Amino acid sequence: MEPIIKSQLDTDYYKISMGNHVFLHHPDIEVEYALTNRTKKVPLAEHVDVDELREQLDYARTIRMAEDELGYLANIRVSNDGQQFLFSQSYIGFLRQNRLPAYELSVRDGQFDLKFGKGDRWASAIYWETIALPIITELYTRALIKNMTRFEKDCLIAEGLLRLQKKIGILRKYPDITFIEFGTRRRYSGWWQDQVVQILVNEMPMQFLGTSNVYLAKKYGIPAIGTIAHEEDMVYAGLAGNDNDAVRNAHQRLLNDWWDLYGWDLSIALTDTFGSSFFFQNMTEEQARKWKGLRQDSGNPFEFGEQAIKFYMNYGIDPREKLIVFSDGLDVNAIIALADRFRGRIHFTFGWGTNLTNDLGLPTLSLVIKAVKANGNGLVKLSDNLAKAIGAPEDVERYKRIFGYENIFTQECRY
Amino acid sequence: MEPIIKSQLDTDYYKISMGNHVFLHHPDIEVEYALTNRTKKVPLAEHVDVDELREQLDYARTIRMAEDELGYLANIRVSNDGQQFLFSQSYIGFLRQNRLPAYELSVRDGQFDLKFGKGDRWASAIYWETIALPIITELYTRALIKNMTRFEKDCLIAEGLLRLQKKIGILRKYPDITFIEFGTRRRYSGWWQDQVVQILVNEMPMQFLGTSNVYLAKKYGIPAIGTIAHEEDMVYAGLAGNDNDAVRNAHQRLLNDWWDLYGWDLSIALTDTFGSSFFFQNMTEEQARKWKGLRQDSGNPFEFGEQAIKFYMNYGIDPREKLIVFSDGLDVNAIIALADRFRGRIHFTFGWGTNLTNDLGLPTLSLVIKAVKANGNGLVKLSDNLAKAIGAPEDVERYKRIFGYENIFTQECRY
Repeated sequence: MEPIIKSQLDTDYYKISMGNHVFLHHPDIEVEYALTNRTKKVPLAEHVDVDELREQLDYARTIRMAEDELGYLANIRVSNDGQQFLFSQSYIGFLRQNRLPAYELSVRDGQFDLKFGKGDRWASAIYWETIALPIITELYTRALIKNMTRFEKDCLIAEGLLRLQKKIGILRKYPDITFIEFGTRRRYSGWWQDQVVQILVNEMPMQFLGTSNVYLAKKYGIPAIGTIAHEEDMVYAGLAGNDNDAVRNAHQRLLNDWWDLYGWDLSIALTDTFGSSFFFQNMTEEQARKWKGLRQDSGNPFEFGEQAIKFYMNYGIDPREKLIVFSDGLDVNAIIALADRFRGRIHFTFGWGTNLTNDLGLPTLSLVIKAVKANGNGLVKLSDNLAKAIGAPEDVERYKRIFGYENIFTQECRY
Repeated sequence: MEPIIKSQLDTDYYKISMGNHVFLHHPDIEVEYALTNRTKKVPLAEHVDVDELREQLDYARTIRMAEDELGYLANIRVSNDGQQFLFSQSYIGFLRQNRLPAYELSVRDGQFDLKFGKGDRWASAIYWETIALPIITELYTRALIKNMTRFEKDCLIAEGLLRLQKKIGILRKYPDITFIEFGTRRRYSGWWQDQVVQILVNEMPMQFLGTSNVYLAKKYGIPAIGTIAHEEDMVYAGLAGNDNDAVRNAHQRLLNDWWDLYGWDLSIALTDTFGSSFFFQNMTEEQARKWKGLRQDSGNPFEFGEQAIKFYMNYGIDPREKLIVFSDGLDVNAIIALADRFRGRIHFTFGWGTNLTNDLGLPTLSLVIKAVKANGNGLVKLSDNLAKAIGAPEDVERYKRIFGYENIFTQECRY
């Protein structure tokens, strides 16, 4: 058995920033997670052996965070104050002893039924998402290449290298385009993601800002980048239970809690959990002024950018002081088109995932592991693309009413 | 200094078959060789440092043939008699102590003036050609990639792999097409030639017949393939001096000597030294019956094939019992077109050189090292492509008259 996850840092940075928040402020909440294969046409359990998956998940549970890894996290500083640490010492102590909790795995209709966190605390279960996703994706990779000859495998890597070379060649012509590697969860393999990051570090250091992968950020001495995910919004709302006003107010509470904990450094707001229209009504002028910017993760990114510019201008804020991080299913063409649209109007950068770390000519999957319950309450994500909505149908309808959700945009998820 | 040639077997097999013949029958002849860069637009000495070239050539002179290598050659058997060895024991003993003789190297007008064999015996100098050519070619490769990043170099290899994959994919659709790797002298690098051979061994064992490279044939346990080169014809004729009849008769003498030494095993005649028209007039019916076939190395290969078929049929020989080895500047398209033309009419195979072992997207050179003098007499090769003719202009004109050479075909040498 060749382990896929060999380090607890081989995960997305936002799991650490959220992990610290959850550990400090919501230590007793229970959150459950479930896997969804949005690429339904691929019967994943027919490609990937359930026992091999179990073996990999079990192995990941045995990994402890090493002292140098804990030291790395402990030493991350608040940017405008080189003296202050971003993460609490108590959290580092928690990480030292933390283990991934148990999981439930079975096969149903050719798909994996994989759940985490039942009866476990959010503070521990939160790490599974970005550990399990690269495991499943890489097992799928291994299945796809199982019957290839050594030469065919080499040619696959060759194809990946040349595709990456083409991306680099094109993006070099746009020196104002910067990007972040966001592809941990859907990478072709851990080895390949490492290659891609190493190449980007060497080939375009001015445009490649960093990676969401903490292990690779540490390895290559580049910034680990990430802030917050939908699950925080979803849990905050879910805990409000049947109280519609409290559900609606949860988003504001989270914005405040997050700012109070991290301030400017991690102040990139994720706008689409309950639809970006609601977000733009809900964020206050003060927040709009203080927060660094916004992350766009679903829907039409061009319309989103226009809305964001209008939003800031309505408050008399110069959008050219604000940042949008586009992170939804990007490729080179989309990146260039967005840059062309928003150049000189608002800052932008790109969180580039699957198409950066899993572009070798093989089919890719759109797999997600999402929070589905918090203290027993069903959780909901609406997003700006209804194909990405999460939650029981009746809960989704209720949330639509609560948040005045009118969007009808639906687009199949490529990644 | 990373040596390019590390083994005396890293050479073409025909140097061994000719070497044995020369050692046994012409031990006292002196033959001089000279380098020609037919790609005149490339000032080679501006790319390749003359001292580095010297260092590589000097290193090659220090290499002795190892005992396992001598054993490998000593054990090659005559095919229709598993008891008889192809090469003489005295020759193996000679190889054990043989060293590459001195060379003369200078730079003139941006090109290397490189000569071998002045005052040395043919039996020793004969080995330089296929040692010096891969050295110069690989130094040129190194110059071309000198300023590339590690990633750019990896992409170059990736491109080479994908081009090879494409060749393999196409040729698999033509299972009756077989070929031999003939690319030692103009390979991208020794490492890359090794990769190519290894891949072909694994990917198309039924179509890939073997390699001219003795070291790789030994390493991969595949046939070492090759017979004879132009230099034997050229020296035989050159030694005849001013006697035109003797010059003309030299070719027959060589055919007889070669048959007497090796018989059927190495009976692939090279037809173009003095023009294939002369060859087809000169080869006797008995020879045409006995010899396995012909190698086509210049001129129009389609016309050559038609001529060869007519030649055999005129003697009442079924061409379907004979073989043509096409070996002039081949690529996949030429190979398929030739197979389509001659399928079912005559056996064919392909000696595939530069385009097989140096096809990574970088410019290639057409370098040759040819015998230029034998015991002080100027040597001449006419070939079926006047761009490949060798010799002093007045000698070339004299040979044209002697051999009734009427061909006017000229084509720039791609490789």
